[in-house]
Amino acid sequence: MSGTPVAPSAGLPASVARPSGRAPSQMREVRIERGYTRHAEGSVLVSFGETRVLCTASVENKAPPFLRGKGEGWVTAEYGMLPRATHSRSDREAARGKQGGRTLEIQRLIGRSLRACVDRKVLGERTITLDCDVLQADGGTRTAAITGAYVALVDAVQWLLKRREIARDPIFGAVAAVSVGIYRGVPVLDLDYAEDSACDTDMNVVMNDGGGFIELQGTAEGHAFRREELDALTSLAEAGIAELIAKQREALGL
Amino acid sequence: MSGTPVAPSAGLPASVARPSGRAPSQMREVRIERGYTRHAEGSVLVSFGETRVLCTASVENKAPPFLRGKGEGWVTAEYGMLPRATHSRSDREAARGKQGGRTLEIQRLIGRSLRACVDRKVLGERTITLDCDVLQADGGTRTAAITGAYVALVDAVQWLLKRREIARDPIFGAVAAVSVGIYRGVPVLDLDYAEDSACDTDMNVVMNDGGGFIELQGTAEGHAFRREELDALTSLAEAGIAELIAKQREALGL
Amino acid sequence: MSGTPVAPSAGLPASVARPSGRAPSQMREVRIERGYTRHAEGSVLVSFGETRVLCTASVENKAPPFLRGKGEGWVTAEYGMLPRATHSRSDREAARGKQGGRTLEIQRLIGRSLRACVDRKVLGERTITLDCDVLQADGGTRTAAITGAYVALVDAVQWLLKRREIARDPIFGAVAAVSVGIYRGVPVLDLDYAEDSACDTDMNVVMNDGGGFIELQGTAEGHAFRREELDALTSLAEAGIAELIAKQREALGL
Amino acid sequence: MSGTPVAPSAGLPASVARPSGRAPSQMREVRIERGYTRHAEGSVLVSFGETRVLCTASVENKAPPFLRGKGEGWVTAEYGMLPRATHSRSDREAARGKQGGRTLEIQRLIGRSLRACVDRKVLGERTITLDCDVLQADGGTRTAAITGAYVALVDAVQWLLKRREIARDPIFGAVAAVSVGIYRGVPVLDLDYAEDSACDTDMNVVMNDGGGFIELQGTAEGHAFRREELDALTSLAEAGIAELIAKQREALGL
Amino acid sequence: MSGTPVAPSAGLPASVARPSGRAPSQMREVRIERGYTRHAEGSVLVSFGETRVLCTASVENKAPPFLRGKGEGWVTAEYGMLPRATHSRSDREAARGKQGGRTLEIQRLIGRSLRACVDRKVLGERTITLDCDVLQADGGTRTAAITGAYVALVDAVQWLLKRREIARDPIFGAVAAVSVGIYRGVPVLDLDYAEDSACDTDMNVVMNDGGGFIELQGTAEGHAFRREELDALTSLAEAGIAELIAKQREALGL
Amino acid sequence: MSGTPVAPSAGLPASVARPSGRAPSQMREVRIERGYTRHAEGSVLVSFGETRVLCTASVENKAPPFLRGKGEGWVTAEYGMLPRATHSRSDREAARGKQGGRTLEIQRLIGRSLRACVDRKVLGERTITLDCDVLQADGGTRTAAITGAYVALVDAVQWLLKRREIARDPIFGAVAAVSVGIYRGVPVLDLDYAEDSACDTDMNVVMNDGGGFIELQGTAEGHAFRREELDALTSLAEAGIAELIAKQREALGL
Repeated sequence: MSGTPVAPSAGLPASVARPSGRAPSQMREVRIERGYTRHAEGSVLVSFGETRVLCTASVENKAPPFLRGKGEGWVTAEYGMLPRATHSRSDREAARGKQGGRTLEIQRLIGRSLRACVDRKVLGERTITLDCDVLQADGGTRTAAITGAYVALVDAVQWLLKRREIARDPIFGAVAAVSVGIYRGVPVLDLDYAEDSACDTDMNVVMNDGGGFIELQGTAEGHAFRREELDALTSLAEAGIAELIAKQREALGL
Repeated sequence: MSGTPVAPSAGLPASVARPSGRAPSQMREVRIERGYTRHAEGSVLVSFGETRVLCTASVENKAPPFLRGKGEGWVTAEYGMLPRATHSRSDREAARGKQGGRTLEIQRLIGRSLRACVDRKVLGERTITLDCDVLQADGGTRTAAITGAYVALVDAVQWLLKRREIARDPIFGAVAAVSVGIYRGVPVLDLDYAEDSACDTDMNVVMNDGGGFIELQGTAEGHAFRREELDALTSLAEAGIAELIAKQREALGL
Repeated sequence: MSGTPVAPSAGLPASVARPSGRAPSQMREVRIERGYTRHAEGSVLVSFGETRVLCTASVENKAPPFLRGKGEGWVTAEYGMLPRATHSRSDREAARGKQGGRTLEIQRLIGRSLRACVDRKVLGERTITLDCDVLQADGGTRTAAITGAYVALVDAVQWLLKRREIARDPIFGAVAAVSVGIYRGVPVLDLDYAEDSACDTDMNVVMNDGGGFIELQGTAEGHAFRREELDALTSLAEAGIAELIAKQREALGL
Repeated sequence: MSGTPVAPSAGLPASVARPSGRAPSQMREVRIERGYTRHAEGSVLVSFGETRVLCTASVENKAPPFLRGKGEGWVTAEYGMLPRATHSRSDREAARGKQGGRTLEIQRLIGRSLRACVDRKVLGERTITLDCDVLQADGGTRTAAITGAYVALVDAVQWLLKRREIARDPIFGAVAAVSVGIYRGVPVLDLDYAEDSACDTDMNVVMNDGGGFIELQGTAEGHAFRREELDALTSLAEAGIAELIAKQREALGL
Repeated sequence: MSGTPVAPSAGLPASVARPSGRAPSQMREVRIERGYTRHAEGSVLVSFGETRVLCTASVENKAPPFLRGKGEGWVTAEYGMLPRATHSRSDREAARGKQGGRTLEIQRLIGRSLRACVDRKVLGERTITLDCDVLQADGGTRTAAITGAYVALVDAVQWLLKRREIARDPIFGAVAAVSVGIYRGVPVLDLDYAEDSACDTDMNVVMNDGGGFIELQGTAEGHAFRREELDALTSLAEAGIAELIAKQREALGL
Repeated sequence: MSGTPVAPSAGLPASVARPSGRAPSQMREVRIERGYTRHAEGSVLVSFGETRVLCTASVENKAPPFLRGKGEGWVTAEYGMLPRATHSRSDREAARGKQGGRTLEIQRLIGRSLRACVDRKVLGERTITLDCDVLQADGGTRTAAITGAYVALVDAVQWLLKRREIARDPIFGAVAAVSVGIYRGVPVLDLDYAEDSACDTDMNVVMNDGGGFIELQGTAEGHAFRREELDALTSLAEAGIAELIAKQREALGL
């Protein structure tokens, strides 16, 4: 990881008036509240500014059908948005009778991201389901969900360890996610809704605490983005994720 | 209404050891928190003890198809339970592809209950949707939802009044709901999950501030209930609802 | 139970011109025809005036998944309305791809009501499904369905007893249902469609032959109803159900 | 049409012991009961022996979307089977969430068959829906449905004519249907369930009163059928349909 | 079978100007290309003129649930049409969430037709699924599908024989299908789209190589068809199917 | 863009034995066949080695509901896989009743990618739907689909221009896509199935002919990937896409 991760690449402007007044490399206030609800083995309310996502981790003592009898477990995610989490009310997916493409895409991303830090053989024939439900949306719900779900996952694994259901910790490292984008020509960190809906390029980055990339999904909304923009964005993301991983550790009391 | 509403009828025992240690006519602690999320025209987090329901009211400037052109509005409700609101995780209805019978039954009840206090002609060709999403369940989610949704509805109507979109307040009176039941032979107020799953009779009562019944749904879980038990239960409910309406007024600053 | 069950409470008017010309406490003509179709273990056509419901009881020699291996059986119900059972044709639920909330609510009610008179341990690992299909609707389809389904259930149990598949009768008592309501200020028994669509309060009451309440579902359609109205309605229902249980016994040759 | 329609072709045996004791060219008793239910514009209970189908015709004053503004009407059909119309209970299609292939195939056949005798321009922008619901099944439900639905359709058209909504009768001729098959090597008319499930070839034939074929659907269940068998079967069908059309005329008082 | 199968019956005109310039008894060019894709056990691209259908045969080593443990196998079919196989784009059935009635009807026909030439006991507890996907449609897709699927089925069975998974060939005879119709009063063979959408009668005929009928589905689109038209059509079909079976043998190198 | 785009970053090995015997920076044989089917306005069969995708472009003269009256058009995509395009048969999505998350994710990606090169105001209120159906899969179906769909889109636009339905060409630049990955520690271009299922990191890259990124989706399958691996992969992709754009131009005769 670069010693000066937040410096944009040569040739890119370094400042812009963000709607929130934040500096380009400044994240929103991040809060991670453990034990938000009482029934789940892990339950975390994560906030990235006004974006609030409830992430619960539920342990079941069986593997999904495709893994039965293989001695491995599974970590999966489901994502939902309360109908009025957004500016205008959106239809309830349960009432419409199916989950939309965006929902499926996000929950697949969350699941893959968290499986990247779990040794599923150590987990044994168990399933941990991470339910990420957006109570209030202001941009970055999927990155907040991944960041919060990691903490809920750790809590669920600790619950298993305490009950001696598993012999050792199947989690290696930490996983967090952040969005970055080009807003009015300037690479910025942690887009809120106002920026997200107006930016040229939007990228979601999932990384681990070793500085490795787990997922990287960049989309040109306006014009195509150049190699140096990609570089600047990944540098910003690296810095943001380092902050997030520190927040996770603090929340977990590590 | 009786002057001593909480006194059980002759012949019914008056005390029992409730799991929570409450007296038979004692409600759980009720909290009503307005403005819980920011986008909805009304947003209330209501708690009946450990049961927590987020109720949002969303205003749309059109009537549903069956009312188009009739100069009347509509008030409707949707109900959902987060997958891990309960002791063990239940399937996400959006993923299963349909809402279950219990969900549909509850959301129909909430909608009917709140329409009972709205003059839909005064509302005009608008729809107010009350989304009641259970964050944590410990019995009584439908009664908490109705009680909280009323407050969210008032806030949404105030929002319309402030913007002068409607000329006068279409809400008359107040509506609240509570459950009552026969637990180990004793009529008790406001069942929590431990009581609900063990009681003989379970009744949900919706009333207005004039002491009138809007909905009354009683079910014999064990043995059939007698007329005097019905009387005792409705008396308990009357007392509980009076408390709830006071809480609503307090929350609304009335 | 009161000695004069049909007398309305003090203060309520005692007479009204019902569309059908019936007295307030007069039921429609009730007919119960056993053996209406030949394949089912129990098959009853029940008529409450012009409301006609075909109730069949089907026996299967296995319990539903949630009861497997517990030595208990299950009694459940499904409800349907033929598309042109009503004044104007309604969509076929099979074509729409889902059962509506009203249908689910009614079939849940029928199932709960009949389970209230069955000792499911005596039934053993069997399922009895009561299909209640409305051939013609004129108000009160759910109460007719419960009343007829009870007779079909008895026939199915007799079929099991005759074949010596079960050692003794798992049914205790009888179950019947009737609707009551406030029509033009007067409590009336057994609402037909004309009354149902114009009444202020509508209540469905399910009782057993011991005079106990199994279900009670009251809804204020116009204004909220008062305690004395509730009393008058339950008294009317008690009288109506006594008549229905006599009709059931007569049909069964008891 | 042959003068001796029921004589099997040369080389085919002419007699067989049918389970019902009928002669090869003998139909079951056919009954057509008009006005079976009261709300529909046409309502017919048709019985072919123990097969009983309720056929209602519902008139709507609008054409389906694909015909809007073309000055033509539509005649369509829906088919359903009550869950316990059959020997063992089949799942309710509304509960399963979709109509099966057999159902769709049959209702498409009924619709096509009846459109063959209607001048849709004379009908004007109206839709007549024929709901054919099987109360009891014993083979031949689709042919009974077509035969009964024709009578319901005539009644609905008469209703339109009486109200002077249409200027003249859009129906030309009559339509009826019957099944034929090869049972133990012998061509037989009007298969019941016992024959249907054991026969080698099964053919459903829809004809009009001019002796013309509207639909002909033959399936070899066991071995492929030969040209002379086809000839014998169509001859049997011609005779059966002549009987059915006479029954229809009698029921209609023509 | 008649010695002069293509001669129309007395009284029917023998010539007509077909849109394609073909003689009444002339088929379109038929091509059968084996091994069109590489993963399936049988994969055939069949063309009837501009109609092109990809037929794959997939072998699975288990019987469907209703045959488990009976020592028999199953042959089934699925049919699909690519959205732009037709003149104007049709909705994708996967996106609409269900297969239409026409699709279900066709795939049931294909399955029944091919089961007619398979000894399912010899096949053992295996399922062969024939997927027939229309790449381009110009009339006659179901008859092309049956004709091509037979060849794919033979290839899949040969694959099983080569691997010695089955002891002997379960296929007896050959199966092919063709459409015939009355176009401008003249019986014609192998309708293309232009004829199909304008013809009076449309008949799909499935036969085996012994000249026996497996399926015969005739529909009067305009006026009802007469017995002599039926005769003329089946004669035409016999001739066409003989050609198709020769093409199948040629493709299979027999 | 680097002058030597295919050279891996310092520290990464440069050679590996690929299952196909290709060099790390070598693509599979790419073929683009226009006019593959005849009804669509654009119809392209694209092959990346054994991966074959049929891409059709269909023009409709109306915008989707959310754009009505805005004077803009829409470009969208649907993706499907024939059941036996793969090694073992997968369920038909139309039969299962819904499109899976992977399908929805891919068709959203294709649609976004192609909208990135279309001026939708110039297109006017029209919709162009790109149906990408995989006839045979061997890895890289989504990148082949994007590459082929671009050519089908150009053909559809040329069709509009020829008919003078639009005044000028709404397409700017070209769009193509390729996958890259880390296979046994070495960055390789254009993964086939054998590599895809065994690789550590898999990245799909969509670029335009100006060297700009439109989409970039990287997933760590095994270990997280490092910054220099990301650099090497994007360089490989740049080289591959330049080849693909040359193939597109050649196919279009530019």
